[in-house]
Amino acid sequence: MQEVRDYIGKHKDRFISELFELLRIPSVSAQPAHKGDVNAAAEWLKKSLDSLKCDKVQIFQTPGNPVLFAEKKAGDGLPTVLVYGHYDVQPPEPLNLWESPPFEPVIKNGKIYARGSCDDKGQLYMHLKAVEVMNQLGGIPCNLKFVIEGEEEVGSVNLEAFVRANRELLSCDIVLVSDTSIVANDIPSITVGLRGLAYMQVELTGPNRDLHSGTYGGAIDNPVNVLCRMIASLHDKDKRITIPGFYDDVRELSTSERTKMQGRPFDKSAYCKELDIADTSGEKGYNEIEWVSIRPTLDVNGIWGGYTGEGAKTVLPSKAFAKISMRLVPDQDPEKITGLFDKHFKSIAPETVKVKVTNLHGGRGAVVPVDSVAYRAAEAALTESFGKAPIPAREGGSIPIVAMFREVLGADTILMGFGLDSDAIHSPNESFGVFNFLKGIETIPGFYRHYSKSVK
Amino acid sequence: MQEVRDYIGKHKDRFISELFELLRIPSVSAQPAHKGDVNAAAEWLKKSLDSLKCDKVQIFQTPGNPVLFAEKKAGDGLPTVLVYGHYDVQPPEPLNLWESPPFEPVIKNGKIYARGSCDDKGQLYMHLKAVEVMNQLGGIPCNLKFVIEGEEEVGSVNLEAFVRANRELLSCDIVLVSDTSIVANDIPSITVGLRGLAYMQVELTGPNRDLHSGTYGGAIDNPVNVLCRMIASLHDKDKRITIPGFYDDVRELSTSERTKMQGRPFDKSAYCKELDIADTSGEKGYNEIEWVSIRPTLDVNGIWGGYTGEGAKTVLPSKAFAKISMRLVPDQDPEKITGLFDKHFKSIAPETVKVKVTNLHGGRGAVVPVDSVAYRAAEAALTESFGKAPIPAREGGSIPIVAMFREVLGADTILMGFGLDSDAIHSPNESFGVFNFLKGIETIPGFYRHYSKSVK
Repeated sequence: MQEVRDYIGKHKDRFISELFELLRIPSVSAQPAHKGDVNAAAEWLKKSLDSLKCDKVQIFQTPGNPVLFAEKKAGDGLPTVLVYGHYDVQPPEPLNLWESPPFEPVIKNGKIYARGSCDDKGQLYMHLKAVEVMNQLGGIPCNLKFVIEGEEEVGSVNLEAFVRANRELLSCDIVLVSDTSIVANDIPSITVGLRGLAYMQVELTGPNRDLHSGTYGGAIDNPVNVLCRMIASLHDKDKRITIPGFYDDVRELSTSERTKMQGRPFDKSAYCKELDIADTSGEKGYNEIEWVSIRPTLDVNGIWGGYTGEGAKTVLPSKAFAKISMRLVPDQDPEKITGLFDKHFKSIAPETVKVKVTNLHGGRGAVVPVDSVAYRAAEAALTESFGKAPIPAREGGSIPIVAMFREVLGADTILMGFGLDSDAIHSPNESFGVFNFLKGIETIPGFYRHYSKSVK
Repeated sequence: MQEVRDYIGKHKDRFISELFELLRIPSVSAQPAHKGDVNAAAEWLKKSLDSLKCDKVQIFQTPGNPVLFAEKKAGDGLPTVLVYGHYDVQPPEPLNLWESPPFEPVIKNGKIYARGSCDDKGQLYMHLKAVEVMNQLGGIPCNLKFVIEGEEEVGSVNLEAFVRANRELLSCDIVLVSDTSIVANDIPSITVGLRGLAYMQVELTGPNRDLHSGTYGGAIDNPVNVLCRMIASLHDKDKRITIPGFYDDVRELSTSERTKMQGRPFDKSAYCKELDIADTSGEKGYNEIEWVSIRPTLDVNGIWGGYTGEGAKTVLPSKAFAKISMRLVPDQDPEKITGLFDKHFKSIAPETVKVKVTNLHGGRGAVVPVDSVAYRAAEAALTESFGKAPIPAREGGSIPIVAMFREVLGADTILMGFGLDSDAIHSPNESFGVFNFLKGIETIPGFYRHYSKSVK
């Protein structure tokens, strides 16, 4: 343990400067202009994996972005852990809100600021550096495989086909993912629940061209006004979602489960202050911790239409657009929910507009069992590195691949992430604590050690 | 009359190619980047007016864009007509919907396609060419003054101060404006009513930064969803505007006035087909002709917030914006309406968002008397040039300066425009018929002749 800490202490500056190289590559998967950068990030990681003396490192092309695979064998009788991560990042927009450029990483107040610093390049790179540490200190205690994709932020569209086609190559006993958070730096936690996602783009077309709002205004259903009306109607006054059938498959928690959840500390006034809001707001009958974990949501992620430049343009727009996504909980099926949304959204449109609904991506929610050998290994590793036992926590985000790995590879996933909710992932000024980055590198070898011991 | 037609027939190609020069200058007043182009358009017009042997041509600087003044005297005992026009144009966006570039004029199917071709460069330039025609055929029959501004599309913010400061210089018997439409090329009309305008930008701020929609979604009032709800609530199910006091000053027309209005031909199925909409939609108790003329409206001219790029970004936006304008009718006061909107909009916001309302511009509606000497002169001129008497028509658009000229100069305005509703002003592919451009040049000298005769 102390050896690991010493090695990290000695090499931490180099670890960080290596990570900075990766963070400088703007591998934004949602924007076709960054296709070259996405490939460059995959190549960069391949070189890094090569330097770790893996038995096999390979870039697989897909119809979308490449998938990296690497394997490092410890011995035939030992269990195999498949580490999953992603090298693509969210779009950095709006750029004007970044205090430093998103692809020029800097350290301020002990945090690394850059797009992807936490989600997921920083957390992924912890795993590579953990291998370096183990290489230097006696070798790895179990077999390792890496599968690293470049399309997580756009719905992992080609990963499932890749996994299905390479079942043998990816076979493992457990999947390990660091793409989640701990509650606080002094409250370690392991994520045991994730929400699913259904993400749609809607397009309304009114008149076939932008019109003069004086000449035509009053006689034409303005598609922006109509879109607002339709979106407003998707929640009722209790903030419940009005799509018929939406709640049919929602797994309701028992009173005792709900009571247990309240063990997680939550300081509402600090939460509101940190976000500069007067109050929280959510579905009637539940509270903040439940709103962001066990309850489904519907949010507009983006809206646009008409004139959005400077000054006044008296236009009656032809079109209005919105990106609308729903966070789903077990056992909501994203395909079913997408179908319900599509049908409902079209049904509430007046005949004066044409509606197009495009399914952008989706994924299932997941709940991780807390009584497994792997969960206990993670618990032991975190207890050692943080000096405190981790608590099980549900997160509001989505990692749809968890359900897919279970189905295709028959393997459960351990979500051992080291970020913080305040890391502003998907937002301007994303950051990842230097403490968290190094603590991850320190904890991961412990997981392998405990896991290998328990399985043997 | 025939002389005028012959001269126009002989010189029309030159007239059009001169207008093309003016149309090539992207004098977009709403966009600061075009400030130089705005000045260039004023200079171009100054040269053109100089060539018409005016007694005085001058560019006046204002805190915003320059105002052009020109004077051409016919004789002391003769009446004076003040011609008003504007050389600024609407922003051309969205550019991808233009079939040819907005500032590269072309003629297709007998129409001049370019931003500003109809609104108002083409209609303004008719007046300059009418002076050329009269210069060549015996001189002008009355005194002429020109006042041409560069801020009409952004609310004529500096014009009133200019007019107030130059009352003597601008003194006149009547104002003549060509910035409106005729019903059809075989149905000449004179505009006798215009709507006013109140134009606002609203900004909602929820959390102080964009958030991850998984981590925070469900517990935070999303400002885009809130904005949609607020906008949706601004109309009731009868499409009446819900702002308290909004209709208090609306002048209701008598049954006989409303009956007379129906004289204007309206083919609903052709109207819907031309716009590719299934149906019109408007305030309960009124019809299409009334919706766009004697009734006030509220339309979103633009909306934006969150991620609007390609693909999916799971962001819970910090801010949401909209441009919202109201067309007003006599006797609604734009300042009063702006105040009512501001108060109401803030009152319907939940405490979870901060609201900012910015007044972008406004102007009063106007009704023009049809029993005046000037109206009858316009009627006679149009009857001669079109071979058919014009009908009085109300238009839905706004020319706020009409009320201002009445108040400051004590002069009424004749709205003798030659555009068509289908000219797509303020929209992509704005056009102005060559027929209409030349018919304007032909009609204007007739107005001066008849007006001068009747006043003497």
